[in-house]
Amino acid sequence: MKTNHNYSKIKESYLFAEVAQRTSKYAAEHPDAKIIKMGIGDVTLPLCKAVVDAMHAAVSEMGVKETFKGYGEYRGYDFLCESIVGYYKKFGVELDTEEVFVSDGAKSDLGNILDLFDEDNTVLVTDPVYPVYVDTNILAGRKIIYADATEENSFLPLPDNSVHADIIYLCSPNNPTGAAYTRDQLKLWVDYAKKEGAVILLDAAYEAFITDPDVPHSAYEVAGAKECVIEICSLSKTAGFTGTRCGYTIVPKSLKFDQDLNKLWLRRQSTKFNGVSYIVQCGANAVFTEEGLKGIRENIAYYQENAKILMKALDECGIKYFGGKNSPYIWLKCPGGMGSWEFFDKLLSEANVVGTPGEGFGENGKGYLRLTSFSTHENTAEAMARLKKMLGK
Amino acid sequence: MKTNHNYSKIKESYLFAEVAQRTSKYAAEHPDAKIIKMGIGDVTLPLCKAVVDAMHAAVSEMGVKETFKGYGEYRGYDFLCESIVGYYKKFGVELDTEEVFVSDGAKSDLGNILDLFDEDNTVLVTDPVYPVYVDTNILAGRKIIYADATEENSFLPLPDNSVHADIIYLCSPNNPTGAAYTRDQLKLWVDYAKKEGAVILLDAAYEAFITDPDVPHSAYEVAGAKECVIEICSLSKTAGFTGTRCGYTIVPKSLKFDQDLNKLWLRRQSTKFNGVSYIVQCGANAVFTEEGLKGIRENIAYYQENAKILMKALDECGIKYFGGKNSPYIWLKCPGGMGSWEFFDKLLSEANVVGTPGEGFGENGKGYLRLTSFSTHENTAEAMARLKKMLGK
Repeated sequence: MKTNHNYSKIKESYLFAEVAQRTSKYAAEHPDAKIIKMGIGDVTLPLCKAVVDAMHAAVSEMGVKETFKGYGEYRGYDFLCESIVGYYKKFGVELDTEEVFVSDGAKSDLGNILDLFDEDNTVLVTDPVYPVYVDTNILAGRKIIYADATEENSFLPLPDNSVHADIIYLCSPNNPTGAAYTRDQLKLWVDYAKKEGAVILLDAAYEAFITDPDVPHSAYEVAGAKECVIEICSLSKTAGFTGTRCGYTIVPKSLKFDQDLNKLWLRRQSTKFNGVSYIVQCGANAVFTEEGLKGIRENIAYYQENAKILMKALDECGIKYFGGKNSPYIWLKCPGGMGSWEFFDKLLSEANVVGTPGEGFGENGKGYLRLTSFSTHENTAEAMARLKKMLGK
Repeated sequence: MKTNHNYSKIKESYLFAEVAQRTSKYAAEHPDAKIIKMGIGDVTLPLCKAVVDAMHAAVSEMGVKETFKGYGEYRGYDFLCESIVGYYKKFGVELDTEEVFVSDGAKSDLGNILDLFDEDNTVLVTDPVYPVYVDTNILAGRKIIYADATEENSFLPLPDNSVHADIIYLCSPNNPTGAAYTRDQLKLWVDYAKKEGAVILLDAAYEAFITDPDVPHSAYEVAGAKECVIEICSLSKTAGFTGTRCGYTIVPKSLKFDQDLNKLWLRRQSTKFNGVSYIVQCGANAVFTEEGLKGIRENIAYYQENAKILMKALDECGIKYFGGKNSPYIWLKCPGGMGSWEFFDKLLSEANVVGTPGEGFGENGKGYLRLTSFSTHENTAEAMARLKKMLGK
């Protein structure tokens, strides 16, 4: 039996593994150090009451013969798909419930959606980039080209009409830079994709953090997007579901390529997937109730307050940064022209604060560091106090 | 963008969709008919108390900051992996927790595991076969060869040393035939796989229904299996998790092909998967407690009683069948030389009982029908009474 040799083409160690390793090494050597972790993008606030109550009710249903649920719909339960359709209505986007597919998370769908595409397609990703987009395509043996996201274009590259692409990954609000495309900018990508006959895979995992009215919550707010965009969404950051696991992917019926992608995705899911736990889908459904939306907005507001604390401190330190406004991420330029890992190590050893080195996300991440706003107010403020002290501000 | 054209090579409509369609058409035309469904292999008994209690506790933890869980281990929580290792000890099988990977179900892993293998491998499946093994490999563009499972070999084909295979699917106890390999028979497959340098993907979803002491609960009870077998397990039938979604896959560290499959699978999962819900993993963990095992055994005993009711009635009708003994499935030979769909339609229209036509599982399924033991005692007895009446017994 021959294994998939594309595995030998991807890095053995994942970025966050290296961050964790250096952090634990430092912690072992300095047992008294109070390390504040602002590296990995994991939430810290508990699930809101509406979600917890809904899951308790669902668990109880599963324990009673009359209300027990066996296999569900491959696409997800109608009640949840309808709630998601209702959520999109708030953005002025009309969806059919059959265009909504419930998943166990955006990461799974971002990888699995590639099953629908031929190996012989050119993939365009922005650099810096969420490593999953790159690794999944290397494993599938596809050619990858990069669009530079730099300080010059505010980390929001626009299409280059002299370049051909078949599959385009966009993440807006962006991980890691926190930069977010406006409707007008996204329209340029939609027009480019239609010209190229390309599909856009839009990772909208950070949608709930958008505050700028010019930034769309869904790509489908942009004319023509339903003919070229698959939107992949997650409740991980929206509702604190990183450990509960639920997301959803929108595959419009108007995505007509050489095959109907909506039909193809349903076939893929019905062949390789058996749906998300009924209990989790009930919790996810509660997110979209009035009480649920109120609960998650309170949590997001808490994280956005952390982002403000970070931005204020960085301003006071004279450190240039991107993101924070429409994103839980702050993408800062390492002071004094330091390299990513150099500043990571300095921050860890002198301030006991852990960030994520930008170069782990690609060439254009060199000299940058990502901080997240998912900590507590206290730790965020303490981390920034230590940063200022470290820089003598 | 070019789509994956292998999708055009698989049937548009899935077997169970056709069964559902014919059933609902009949129901619409005969609104008074009390239809008894013994087609799809879905459980009907609720989750046992230990599982329900554990999930309630986990849901409560997720609602409190101090006990809230974010991202978990890609492989699954250690507490669950250790419980699974403990479960295997009962079969005399020693595993390392790092050889256990928690999944959202056997179907997902049966499809996703193919990411590890080169397209240029020959896949061997038995016929009749669970359609997922075939469809996932057609989608991946692999050559598929068939081993005939027939009445002559009691639906337990053994390896043909004149045939080469790289990836071998075995399902024991089998879906759809209910036939189960003994240790000695499985040893022949292990020896063949090692001779061919092949990997065996063993679908052990029905392991909990085994009653025959000569039938192994795990392939690793057979010498040499750790060098060639990946075992894919599910709690769907074992613990009624069809709607709760949890399974596990064993990838031994001693699986040394041209790459280390254990390392490859961890890399695949960490790239394309973010683990199973903490709540579901807590429920799964409760299955392996003393109280949990007692609870699931009671449910399985209930289904096994249904199988006995089915077998007794078929004996009385002089209908030949396989399975039932180590499996929730009864694979019966359609009386009077009827075809699968012919008998399906007769059973539906004259007895209002729904089975699954054997030919939906492959050429060798022609003339057979699958019945499941997942109904209630009352409905199972009623269905068999109607069958006898239909056949004038």
